Amino acid sequence: MSAEGPGRSRQVAITRVREGNSKRADDVVAVEEPLEIRLGYNDAGDRAERSIAITMRTPGNDEELAAGFLFTEGIVSARDSILEIWHRSPPVPGDSQLRNVIRVDLADDAVVEFERLERHFYMTSSCGVCGKASLEALRTQSAYTTAADSSQLQIVATELVQLPGRLADEQRVFGETGGLHAAGLFDSAGKVYLVREDVGRHNAMDKLIGRLLLDDALPAGDRGVIVSGRTSFELVQKAAMAGVPMLAAVGAPSSLAVDIAQDFGMTLVGFLRDGRFNIYTGESRIPD
Amino acid sequence: MSAEGPGRSRQVAITRVREGNSKRADDVVAVEEPLEIRLGYNDAGDRAERSIAITMRTPGNDEELAAGFLFTEGIVSARDSILEIWHRSPPVPGDSQLRNVIRVDLADDAVVEFERLERHFYMTSSCGVCGKASLEALRTQSAYTTAADSSQLQIVATELVQLPGRLADEQRVFGETGGLHAAGLFDSAGKVYLVREDVGRHNAMDKLIGRLLLDDALPAGDRGVIVSGRTSFELVQKAAMAGVPMLAAVGAPSSLAVDIAQDFGMTLVGFLRDGRFNIYTGESRIPD
Repeated sequence: MSAEGPGRSRQVAITRVREGNSKRADDVVAVEEPLEIRLGYNDAGDRAERSIAITMRTPGNDEELAAGFLFTEGIVSARDSILEIWHRSPPVPGDSQLRNVIRVDLADDAVVEFERLERHFYMTSSCGVCGKASLEALRTQSAYTTAADSSQLQIVATELVQLPGRLADEQRVFGETGGLHAAGLFDSAGKVYLVREDVGRHNAMDKLIGRLLLDDALPAGDRGVIVSGRTSFELVQKAAMAGVPMLAAVGAPSSLAVDIAQDFGMTLVGFLRDGRFNIYTGESRIPD
Repeated sequence: MSAEGPGRSRQVAITRVREGNSKRADDVVAVEEPLEIRLGYNDAGDRAERSIAITMRTPGNDEELAAGFLFTEGIVSARDSILEIWHRSPPVPGDSQLRNVIRVDLADDAVVEFERLERHFYMTSSCGVCGKASLEALRTQSAYTTAADSSQLQIVATELVQLPGRLADEQRVFGETGGLHAAGLFDSAGKVYLVREDVGRHNAMDKLIGRLLLDDALPAGDRGVIVSGRTSFELVQKAAMAGVPMLAAVGAPSSLAVDIAQDFGMTLVGFLRDGRFNIYTGESRIPD
């Protein structure tokens, strides 16, 4: 289910140095390019357009990324709010700066939570948390619950440990560049359904959730998400926004990832590799 | 030189599952907490205060992080602009939400480039690019040049390959949690001088550059920076802001990291591990 497309990786000329010997060679790097996300919306009877984000992303599945970003950031709350998604065409071939604009047109009656973006609009760091006034505001915004009794998802340890391999199988580009993060959806049987990749791990998650939103498949209470790297606050909250009750990661969680998962009643798994893993919260979803 | 402090890692109770056996255990996770950065500045004769960023970071070296953020984002351009840095004390012990505010008081004659933050104030993704209107704007903002002929830094391959080990030696917390990114400063002889860590790799870089700024040690034209992970656009541009002519990474670069390094005349090294590396740009700084 890995979605491929042009422009996700690019060949570059490098000098490769091994054991003191250097030689010119070709290598492949993951593409990182800015994408501007604009909203078209109803402003007191008139159609208005507003630029709300620029994200550095790997091209591909941009409509999923835009939809997922709007949803996981709490700016739009339902599939019905999104009418159409437009990609600006390049007036000049190869003019990637101009091509990298996407506009999401919202329904006339869609409620846009601009204040979610505005209260604290400077947000830095790799967590990518933009426009959130406080952690408290964050913790209350999900339309879905991921509390322990609300979900049918359970997965046994013997299937869970297979997930990284299955995720990697789906990651065609990953093997090529070593530079892409991945997020994949899995079910109780350990099947990996949908994989999205990006140089930014939050974008990979947004693409995945955006696909589910566009397919009207949220909340995903009987699915988990596996990610190829570490888990931060941001990834846990994005998963919670989609009603996903389990997040499994190949890497380590941060303290806040653990805290937020606990608050949301989510299952958080870390260091899932080499047949081992740690359960940080919600172990009832992983029966013996 | 690794700076330690309270609250950088935290013990959590987990369930560890190995070969089908699970047991309760204690584990350590890297702390991730929000830090609000405020500016105190001269507004037409009056002192004004403004909240300009919230970043998710690992506590410790917060004054460096704040100073480095302001500098690498182009909001302040000189050491002299920073008069004092204040950390808000917790009125209640353990109230980390309230403690996590830092205020940077600027000199009366300091020029604050608020428009650098304002033109596009919603920026997401793991790149952490906040408030930048375009890549073009970015490429012109460094006060220093990293062009090939401006730097004394050269390092031979046999020393370069030692850097990851020396960086790891300096990373006390890293070995403990597996959850922290590191950035370290090195010289022509391959000595690693200064290491900073964070859950966010951009924060580790900002802490490192903030230290140099506060020590009035910029530009660092005879130093390189080694990072423990991948390189994005953002890391390259932060290094360029500090006049650092070489960035070496254990992981892969993105396409835009390569492009920007090329534009800046920087040397970009990737996949620096196991005695090997790739040179993406600027190989003249790595003589045979």
